[in-house]
Amino acid sequence: MAKKYVYAFGDGKAEGNAKMRNELGGKGANIAEMTNLGIPVPPGFTISTEASTRFMESGGEHPDGLDEQVSKHIAVLESRMGSGFGDKDNPLLVSVRSGARISMPGMMDTVLNIGLNDRTVQGLARRTDNPRFAYDSYRRFIHMYGDVVMGVEHELFEGLLARRRQKAGVEQDNQLSVKDLEELIEDYKGLVKSEKTMAFPEDPRRQLWGAIDAVFESWNGNRAVVYRRIHGIPNDWGTAVNVQAMVFGNMGEDSATGVAFTRDPANGEPRFYGEYLINAQGEDVVAGIRTPMSVSMQVSDEQSGISLEAKMPKAYGQLVAVYKRLERHYRDMQDIEFTIQQGKLWLLQTRSGKRTGRSAIRIAVDMVSEGLIDKREAIKRVNPDQLEQLLHPMIDPTINAEPITKGLPASPGAASGCVVFSVEEALQSVAKGDKVVLVRVETSPEDVEGMKAAEAILTARGGMTSHAAVVARGMGKCCVVGASELQVDYQRKTLLVKGDTIEAGDTITVDGTTGHVYKGRLRTVEPILDDFYNQFMSWADEFRKLRVRANADTPEDAENAVQFGAEGIGLARTEHMFFKEDRIPVVREMIMAANREERVRALRQIQPMQREDFLGVFRAMQGRPVTIRLLDPPLHEFLPHDDEDIANTARHIGRSQDEVRAVVSSLQEFNPMLGHRGCRLGITYPEIYEVQAEAIVEAAIAASREGIDVKPEIMVPLVSIKQELVELRERIQRVATDVMNREGVHIRFLIGTMIEVPRAALLADQIAEVADFFSFGTNDLTQLTFGFSRDDSGKYLADYMSKGILHGDPFETIDQAGVGHLVRTAVEKGRRANPKLKIGICGEHGGDPESVAFFGAVGLDYVSCSPFRVPVARLAAAQVAVENSR
Amino acid sequence: MAKKYVYAFGDGKAEGNAKMRNELGGKGANIAEMTNLGIPVPPGFTISTEASTRFMESGGEHPDGLDEQVSKHIAVLESRMGSGFGDKDNPLLVSVRSGARISMPGMMDTVLNIGLNDRTVQGLARRTDNPRFAYDSYRRFIHMYGDVVMGVEHELFEGLLARRRQKAGVEQDNQLSVKDLEELIEDYKGLVKSEKTMAFPEDPRRQLWGAIDAVFESWNGNRAVVYRRIHGIPNDWGTAVNVQAMVFGNMGEDSATGVAFTRDPANGEPRFYGEYLINAQGEDVVAGIRTPMSVSMQVSDEQSGISLEAKMPKAYGQLVAVYKRLERHYRDMQDIEFTIQQGKLWLLQTRSGKRTGRSAIRIAVDMVSEGLIDKREAIKRVNPDQLEQLLHPMIDPTINAEPITKGLPASPGAASGCVVFSVEEALQSVAKGDKVVLVRVETSPEDVEGMKAAEAILTARGGMTSHAAVVARGMGKCCVVGASELQVDYQRKTLLVKGDTIEAGDTITVDGTTGHVYKGRLRTVEPILDDFYNQFMSWADEFRKLRVRANADTPEDAENAVQFGAEGIGLARTEHMFFKEDRIPVVREMIMAANREERVRALRQIQPMQREDFLGVFRAMQGRPVTIRLLDPPLHEFLPHDDEDIANTARHIGRSQDEVRAVVSSLQEFNPMLGHRGCRLGITYPEIYEVQAEAIVEAAIAASREGIDVKPEIMVPLVSIKQELVELRERIQRVATDVMNREGVHIRFLIGTMIEVPRAALLADQIAEVADFFSFGTNDLTQLTFGFSRDDSGKYLADYMSKGILHGDPFETIDQAGVGHLVRTAVEKGRRANPKLKIGICGEHGGDPESVAFFGAVGLDYVSCSPFRVPVARLAAAQVAVENSR
Repeated sequence: MAKKYVYAFGDGKAEGNAKMRNELGGKGANIAEMTNLGIPVPPGFTISTEASTRFMESGGEHPDGLDEQVSKHIAVLESRMGSGFGDKDNPLLVSVRSGARISMPGMMDTVLNIGLNDRTVQGLARRTDNPRFAYDSYRRFIHMYGDVVMGVEHELFEGLLARRRQKAGVEQDNQLSVKDLEELIEDYKGLVKSEKTMAFPEDPRRQLWGAIDAVFESWNGNRAVVYRRIHGIPNDWGTAVNVQAMVFGNMGEDSATGVAFTRDPANGEPRFYGEYLINAQGEDVVAGIRTPMSVSMQVSDEQSGISLEAKMPKAYGQLVAVYKRLERHYRDMQDIEFTIQQGKLWLLQTRSGKRTGRSAIRIAVDMVSEGLIDKREAIKRVNPDQLEQLLHPMIDPTINAEPITKGLPASPGAASGCVVFSVEEALQSVAKGDKVVLVRVETSPEDVEGMKAAEAILTARGGMTSHAAVVARGMGKCCVVGASELQVDYQRKTLLVKGDTIEAGDTITVDGTTGHVYKGRLRTVEPILDDFYNQFMSWADEFRKLRVRANADTPEDAENAVQFGAEGIGLARTEHMFFKEDRIPVVREMIMAANREERVRALRQIQPMQREDFLGVFRAMQGRPVTIRLLDPPLHEFLPHDDEDIANTARHIGRSQDEVRAVVSSLQEFNPMLGHRGCRLGITYPEIYEVQAEAIVEAAIAASREGIDVKPEIMVPLVSIKQELVELRERIQRVATDVMNREGVHIRFLIGTMIEVPRAALLADQIAEVADFFSFGTNDLTQLTFGFSRDDSGKYLADYMSKGILHGDPFETIDQAGVGHLVRTAVEKGRRANPKLKIGICGEHGGDPESVAFFGAVGLDYVSCSPFRVPVARLAAAQVAVENSR
Repeated sequence: MAKKYVYAFGDGKAEGNAKMRNELGGKGANIAEMTNLGIPVPPGFTISTEASTRFMESGGEHPDGLDEQVSKHIAVLESRMGSGFGDKDNPLLVSVRSGARISMPGMMDTVLNIGLNDRTVQGLARRTDNPRFAYDSYRRFIHMYGDVVMGVEHELFEGLLARRRQKAGVEQDNQLSVKDLEELIEDYKGLVKSEKTMAFPEDPRRQLWGAIDAVFESWNGNRAVVYRRIHGIPNDWGTAVNVQAMVFGNMGEDSATGVAFTRDPANGEPRFYGEYLINAQGEDVVAGIRTPMSVSMQVSDEQSGISLEAKMPKAYGQLVAVYKRLERHYRDMQDIEFTIQQGKLWLLQTRSGKRTGRSAIRIAVDMVSEGLIDKREAIKRVNPDQLEQLLHPMIDPTINAEPITKGLPASPGAASGCVVFSVEEALQSVAKGDKVVLVRVETSPEDVEGMKAAEAILTARGGMTSHAAVVARGMGKCCVVGASELQVDYQRKTLLVKGDTIEAGDTITVDGTTGHVYKGRLRTVEPILDDFYNQFMSWADEFRKLRVRANADTPEDAENAVQFGAEGIGLARTEHMFFKEDRIPVVREMIMAANREERVRALRQIQPMQREDFLGVFRAMQGRPVTIRLLDPPLHEFLPHDDEDIANTARHIGRSQDEVRAVVSSLQEFNPMLGHRGCRLGITYPEIYEVQAEAIVEAAIAASREGIDVKPEIMVPLVSIKQELVELRERIQRVATDVMNREGVHIRFLIGTMIEVPRAALLADQIAEVADFFSFGTNDLTQLTFGFSRDDSGKYLADYMSKGILHGDPFETIDQAGVGHLVRTAVEKGRRANPKLKIGICGEHGGDPESVAFFGAVGLDYVSCSPFRVPVARLAAAQVAVENSR
């Protein structure tokens, strides 16, 4: 016996159900489910995904039995509808729609009105008493079928249509008479014949098989293949085909069509929210030719009279009953499509409705109170990325502006301001009370003060983990990077975008959530953190096992982080403190030192400043753990680069400008990322780390004297060899012991290391023997594992993603196969060698939900991310915990 | 019963033997062995290494039983010598020497004449009938013991000695009278007492224990600890202590002392080769105060009359018998020390003699003919690094010049020439017939023509795998890099070295084998590849399993490689061909192209040039496999950088200088090593690789038409993601098929990839599915695994090695634990996924013996290295095969 490929639905009974998504596709499974629920759905049948798989495997043959099964089910459908396929008086018309497991652009979508031909169109005209409608449907059918199934160019049909309008002397298609349409239909048929050297098929069965085969073949269409490659969807999934009797919302004033959400998709309020049109087809609602009206009365006073509720109370009552049924059944907010044909309600589709982050939270919390779902389910219902929307201003969604360019969405939120090109301009403008957007080719640590002053940052270069991106996220400041169409001219103080010039002082708006940049000031909507949010996050915290810390360098950042729910600081970068205006001269003095003595003298000046910084952070964190990373960047980053700055530095430290230039040039490196930085500095200039360790311990003692149960964790960066950590640990320990003996106070502290070099991950067992904790630096680890510079990779990574070579930016979401393998190895080896090892991650991946889920699964103790990503990480951590608990 | 710590030797019987190196140290084991052989050795005993380990563990306690055992053995020694320890008439004198498993600087070395005091010195004077000798020995003893054992500063003794000379009115120590010496001895004792507040020990037993404890303690001396850390020697090995009766070569004209090699250490000729002094102590031979004479008559006519053979024929006869015995016994050339006391021969030490590479080969080949060793043993007898000496000129070893500075020995050999600072100067001077040394801060691909023209290359920056080092090794040209004391001033055309100025045109000599740089021209010795060498290498080839290929970019390099025994080319870098003067403008045109069409147009001009290059290489290799790597470096490297060059390029391609500058700046990268290079270029500009693949296949077809059984292997660099190779492989395959169809000729070729990114190694199973071969690029792999830039790491790597954080430069010898782990993983995973996978390595490690041994053990198919390193790799590969075969 042949395999079953066709699954019927209709009259309250379906052979499939919602669980058969793999066999029937998303659309087919939901149609079957609705049918089984007794909800009125136009009857029809679904051809399984397996049929399409067989079709492809055999190179275009229908599998055994498919033809017979389809014929049989068409017969069933005819009897159910009381009409006949090709019947000249009462023709059965069907739609054919594709439906893969997940919705996929590039696939053939829909052919409506299959079954129309020169004879049946007359029957349709008679039965609807609307010849215009019948012939318009017919010409649309030939156009749609000719284009989608037969491959005749869309524009050729449009050309004939335009010529026909001209001939008829009308401007709109709907002004064409029945006769015009009849002639147009002849034109269309002639076009098909001349283009394809075959007549347009009159036989409804040939029409049907043509459409079904077209769906099968569209699975291997170019766009679909690329889409699958980019999104990592297997080629052998195949697609289902849904064949369904047509129903018409345009059969008169007692007919209608509409779409609705069972709750408000914008804010989640529990009200039925939809739009409909009387005497119309589904396409009309979407196309926006006529303005649709509200389904419910409650929405607004003006609408109440023309609402579906008022106009067709009976059908509305049915619809309400159906939506409540569906929501209860699916236990989620639904997005439904319906048609009312001559007073009778038909449901065409139901699916989980898309919603904003705010709506998602409100719906999840409400549904828990309503007993529809439990807290675990609620946690799974909100996409962590959506939380971002709640935490930052966004451009008013009602505004429909055209962006002038697009970059990478490096740090979310939206803001407007006058364009400035330098830190000085930024500070001056802000002092005058202006709001500014700092525009740079790329930023460096010297720009940090300007970034702080600006509302938003925009760069022409750099990727998701470039300096601008990382710092902006840390500040929670809107930022777009790598907007490569921008030509920044610092001299002329202009910004060229595709021939358009923007000058310093002009206002622009930057949307860091989408990467878009706009001219002028666009209205923004402020974020709201309401009780629903708080309730929801408290549930997340209840379930999650991963702790969430923040990356924060200053007391202000630290306070901010605590407010967002951070349970500690996973990364305090000591170098960011070095760039402050009052410190950088001393830092430079330290770097320019000719010998150890001079260096120590300069470091002695820096020490009290660092101590105060640390004390401030300890105070802000009130006993939560604080991980402080010792100096990491190459010294070159701190040095002056322009002539003025060099002159100032030379004056300050009493050397000649040539001497300063010589040091600057001697510290230049070809590949600073692989250069003299991290613990390599600590090895060659032991005094730097010694002074930093001293400042940490002194600050910790001061904090403990204030009654704070201080928990410093001293972190050594960029270790690749165990012996590096052995030597530095010994040194730090010695300094700490000296300070504690001198002060007569004992504090607890940990010494650990970043795992950010592949070798450290590979030899984590050795390193764990001398580390109290590991913190993965996945930015560097990703750079080194792929050999991708985060600053330079923008150029080719975009290309890689568009070609499907990579399915995502590995600097945004951790590469589980490669970098993740190293993380897993290091965790296993590290814990085996040192069971008490505490393990976290402080790279940018710490705030990416998919990555957080991975870190949770691998068994890390905590993730650390920018303060503004803390809620995102808390939710992602809760989701992985809920997932793992089953 | 207490453990045995003391092992006696004497009178033809020893408790130890040569195999007990771990217990008795190297020196002790050999002394025992000689004793057992019946060779006359002054009797004594060895305290085992375990005693010193216990001493250290207990914090300075002698282990139970040690004191008694030493006392017992002193008594045995007294009876053997017929003298008494402290006996005023016939005193026993002993030496105390340390002796670890391997010789180690920083350890206490030797104290002679223990047993002398105010009384025994008189007995010695009487018995030798030489009071001057006796008192001189005594004052030397106090000096040596006071310094080494008691820690009184050496200079203080020297000061007293100088004052005493002054007082006596003499210039030389040996002009001091017995009375002077007696007074000096009193001065010395006073010094010790005032410095150490204790008298110099008169009791011979206290002297002995002081010396033994000093040896024990010297194991933990600073220098010894650092040495062990640097060389990775375990701290718990401990050291043995050898206590031995003194014999004197200075007891008159019938006494003598000398050192000898059993074969010529310079050229390996089988003749007894040594030097001796009559009436002298061992130190005198080494110190060079008197000129030693030849042991044998055969060495030269002048020497024959004063040779030991002539002067003391009987002792000489004994010595010859002993040396033959020792050689036969140890089956290796020996370095021996002997003393003749009043006509009686004593052997003090024997060990394998150090020898030049040439000597090592000659001795190994001769010993096989003599039946002393077999071929396997012969192969193990030559250090592969020594082969280098044979292949390059070296500075005449008889010259004793002082280097002006030292850098890294990047490419061996020695050469002299006038200093030039640029390619232009180099070419001009060479055109005039001068020999030049090219001196640069560092080199870049633009300098290659100048490097070719020069005799030697010297740079102030860069490491063992910097551009200069790699290119010079490829050329077999002498090169010293990273000579950081040099200050190169391109403007003034001078070279500053520690205040000394060298100007353009001055002659210097560069020794790439040692890293030394000398002023002026030093005489060099040309390499000799004789029959012994050929015989030896043919044995190596007989045993080795690893194939050896060469890295060669041009037909000339390829021919050279074949002459050195290369069995194929493992890496032909296509980009080196791009830098030729007639090509670089077209290459630049290609890079500056505004779109695909322009780029293809430029590539079409490059294609025939590349084809000719490849054809030349195929011809040179005559059917041996040739691996050609597609374009690898970032395009920026090919662009003009100075104004003149930019102007020329702009003129050539018909663009404005500003446009050229804009492209140059847009291609600049922060970390080019991690940038847009390797297969990333092939993905974003598919036409580049397509044209290269076409040129390779066309050249292969042309070669095959000439009857060459051509075997091209097309190599895709820098793959980190399987899909990169999938895409590029498809493209290369398509181009190849097109060309072969067009030409009607089918050739076999492979498509493979470099494994040089950690991710590629970790996911080698995936990549192997689409690769015919892997070639490890261990330079990049090392860079990325450690996060060390090979160009910038010189700054800290030196520090790392001197501090013992690293035991060697990982760019020179592969880091087995980290990088090697990735290599091993990739080999296992790759072979599992694709059993036919061919695997080689083409990084600089391919020519490093220790690394070659590792690659052999891991199971690679071949290594590829610079042509001049091919013999080294052949030998190293043979050694690992011999090692594995047991």
